[in-house]
Amino acid sequence: MARTTHAPATPTVIDIDAYMLGLGRNASAAARTIAAAGTGAKSRGLQAIAAALNDARAALAEANEVDLAGAKSAKIEQPLIDRLVLDERGIDRMIDGIREVDALPDPIGAITDLEFRPSGIQVGRMRVPLGVIGMIYESRPNVTADAAALCLKSGNACILRGGSEAFHTNSAIAAAIAKGLVEAQLPVTAVQLVATTDRAAVGALLKLKQYIDVLIPRGGRSLIERVSAESAIPVIKHLDGICHVYIDDGADPDMAVQIAFNSKTEKYAVCNAMETLLVAQSIAPRVLPSLRHQFERAGVELRGCAKTRVLLPGIAAAAESDWHAEYLAPILSIRIVAGLDEAIDHIATYGSQHTDVIVSNDYARARRFVTEVDSASVMVNVSTQFADGFEFGLGAEIGISTDKLHARGPVGLEGLTTQKFVVFGNGEIRHR
Amino acid sequence: MARTTHAPATPTVIDIDAYMLGLGRNASAAARTIAAAGTGAKSRGLQAIAAALNDARAALAEANEVDLAGAKSAKIEQPLIDRLVLDERGIDRMIDGIREVDALPDPIGAITDLEFRPSGIQVGRMRVPLGVIGMIYESRPNVTADAAALCLKSGNACILRGGSEAFHTNSAIAAAIAKGLVEAQLPVTAVQLVATTDRAAVGALLKLKQYIDVLIPRGGRSLIERVSAESAIPVIKHLDGICHVYIDDGADPDMAVQIAFNSKTEKYAVCNAMETLLVAQSIAPRVLPSLRHQFERAGVELRGCAKTRVLLPGIAAAAESDWHAEYLAPILSIRIVAGLDEAIDHIATYGSQHTDVIVSNDYARARRFVTEVDSASVMVNVSTQFADGFEFGLGAEIGISTDKLHARGPVGLEGLTTQKFVVFGNGEIRHR
Repeated sequence: MARTTHAPATPTVIDIDAYMLGLGRNASAAARTIAAAGTGAKSRGLQAIAAALNDARAALAEANEVDLAGAKSAKIEQPLIDRLVLDERGIDRMIDGIREVDALPDPIGAITDLEFRPSGIQVGRMRVPLGVIGMIYESRPNVTADAAALCLKSGNACILRGGSEAFHTNSAIAAAIAKGLVEAQLPVTAVQLVATTDRAAVGALLKLKQYIDVLIPRGGRSLIERVSAESAIPVIKHLDGICHVYIDDGADPDMAVQIAFNSKTEKYAVCNAMETLLVAQSIAPRVLPSLRHQFERAGVELRGCAKTRVLLPGIAAAAESDWHAEYLAPILSIRIVAGLDEAIDHIATYGSQHTDVIVSNDYARARRFVTEVDSASVMVNVSTQFADGFEFGLGAEIGISTDKLHARGPVGLEGLTTQKFVVFGNGEIRHR
Repeated sequence: MARTTHAPATPTVIDIDAYMLGLGRNASAAARTIAAAGTGAKSRGLQAIAAALNDARAALAEANEVDLAGAKSAKIEQPLIDRLVLDERGIDRMIDGIREVDALPDPIGAITDLEFRPSGIQVGRMRVPLGVIGMIYESRPNVTADAAALCLKSGNACILRGGSEAFHTNSAIAAAIAKGLVEAQLPVTAVQLVATTDRAAVGALLKLKQYIDVLIPRGGRSLIERVSAESAIPVIKHLDGICHVYIDDGADPDMAVQIAFNSKTEKYAVCNAMETLLVAQSIAPRVLPSLRHQFERAGVELRGCAKTRVLLPGIAAAAESDWHAEYLAPILSIRIVAGLDEAIDHIATYGSQHTDVIVSNDYARARRFVTEVDSASVMVNVSTQFADGFEFGLGAEIGISTDKLHARGPVGLEGLTTQKFVVFGNGEIRHR
């Protein structure tokens, strides 16, 4: 086994700009082939990649050990190291993920709204790939396989730039993907991993406007802001999730308590966790004491507005900055509001247009909340934690967009595509 | 009649940045109201605007005279002056346009794909406004009314920056729009015209990222490139239309000649006019001589590749730059290609992904052209000149997008909207 080629000890790229330009050219050429590839060809590619990853278990484990050893000696924080681990179960999940993407319907080529116009022409919309996707991500190496599978299924070529701490693992995954593509007779440059940890490669990637159609950064706020600021390429952004649950006057108190508790505690470090709880004045005495009891038992720190602290004596005071905070941690800010209008105003002022929930049995107020709250996911009587591509039925997701244009909310295969108009005629010419 | 307030002699804004920030804040506040306005309220607004424009005919004519006199004394080119004219017929068309927008279905609030998921939650997508649209445009004053109507119908607020040469006409139109909005009890700041010709206002507009959701520049290439380069706000771009007609081996020669002739000559200065004609070698002798005859009679200058010049002796030679040219004039470049592959390659190399046509009766080749040509509008056996929002059944259009993301091709009401996920539940909580 040529394991060393799967986990190169040192990246060897010299002229970064020339290298990245080459990746761009390769991707652009591969994009035309992959865009025209049929569902069957793409399926054979995905199955071959899944098989190649399965065959590469030893190489993947070895490469991951190299990365983990490097991360430990570089004294990287434990949460980052945890995300770096790719164990047998992680490999299983990665392979299952590729097979799940293969099982999704092929979005490409579908023609909708094909209708005759008075002129005699027939006009419809065909779903087509975007072209070349540039992904920049950190830590979790499974993203390499997930992104490759989603891009391939949606007929796009991709250039993947993973975190340097996961370089050897990502390289081993990319080698298996390449093997699968070759076996399925698809262009091997349809999926390219940037083969260097040199940070200059990111800057060079951001400049490849003539080759890359969309950039998807996944990582901290500073990465996403850098990409948006530096690049003229369109970006699908995934920013903060400052999610709210508003417990309306008309809520069922038991349901409200369950939803609020689950929205915060099911997972803390996820963008769809609740960060601020809003409670209508009239129902606060019936839900907050019970919630306090449950949250405190779960170790969640509560920070309340003045009215909340009257009802829940002893909890900390929420500062203005708390309403702006995405804690991603067992901390919750609570505010008592007069009613629906104040709740909608609070969300408009402090929210991040990610996911917001009303708990209510009042028809008119639930309807107003759904209409007037301007967030990617607006929900009635469910936990915020449902806001993801799998739960929404999109299959796998490549991220959750906080943009308004193009893709909003969980981004599945459709967000990696666009449409073109197709027109079928019979010799029609136009006379204005 | 207080006509002088409709056509202010000199703009009076002093602190541009503060003024533009104020417009942004006003628009943002109005956007929330207009987004929640019902179909009936928006319809009353559009009808009141149409009536107010009808009442303002004298003021509009007077303001247009001021602009025309200014343009003539500034020695502005005749084509620009022609576009500046707003005569009685132009006012009629402007008013009709607003009534036509009113008659379109309201896109806002429509929920699609509302389906139950295994968890019990019901997930759908609701069409919603983008928020605040910033338009920057040149010359034609009717754009002020068209854009206002499309934005209002789609539930968006807008900030309009017209050309300085049309300032008085635009101001008179904006005054009538304001009157209509007030009469219909809609926020008057839902449509705001930038009330100064100071060029610094454009720079300030491009910086209003916290208030403007999308910019739509309409004008020359330099304007659009400036907006894209300078602003961090998403842009819906309308760049070149280098449109091709490819006459395939399998074409009906008569149909091919008619389509090629109409694609070039129906109008020259439009983005959907053909600029390059590609002809399969085998059919060239049956179509090019007849086309030469027709084009020369119409005064169209032909520039051909070497093979074309063998068949059409005496015509000028096409240079490399001709394949890149958007003439917008009675000039046509012609290239003979071996067949479909070479035609698709030519379009991929030189096209602007706007509109491309194949003329063919060969099923497999027509299908390949539609699939493999990556343009906003791909057509079989019709004239390129059909590529517009009205002919496609979108109603009025705010532009033709050459972007791939969000809106592609003619942009009607839908392009001015986005979607959000809506989730209806019954107390569901998530357990991973």
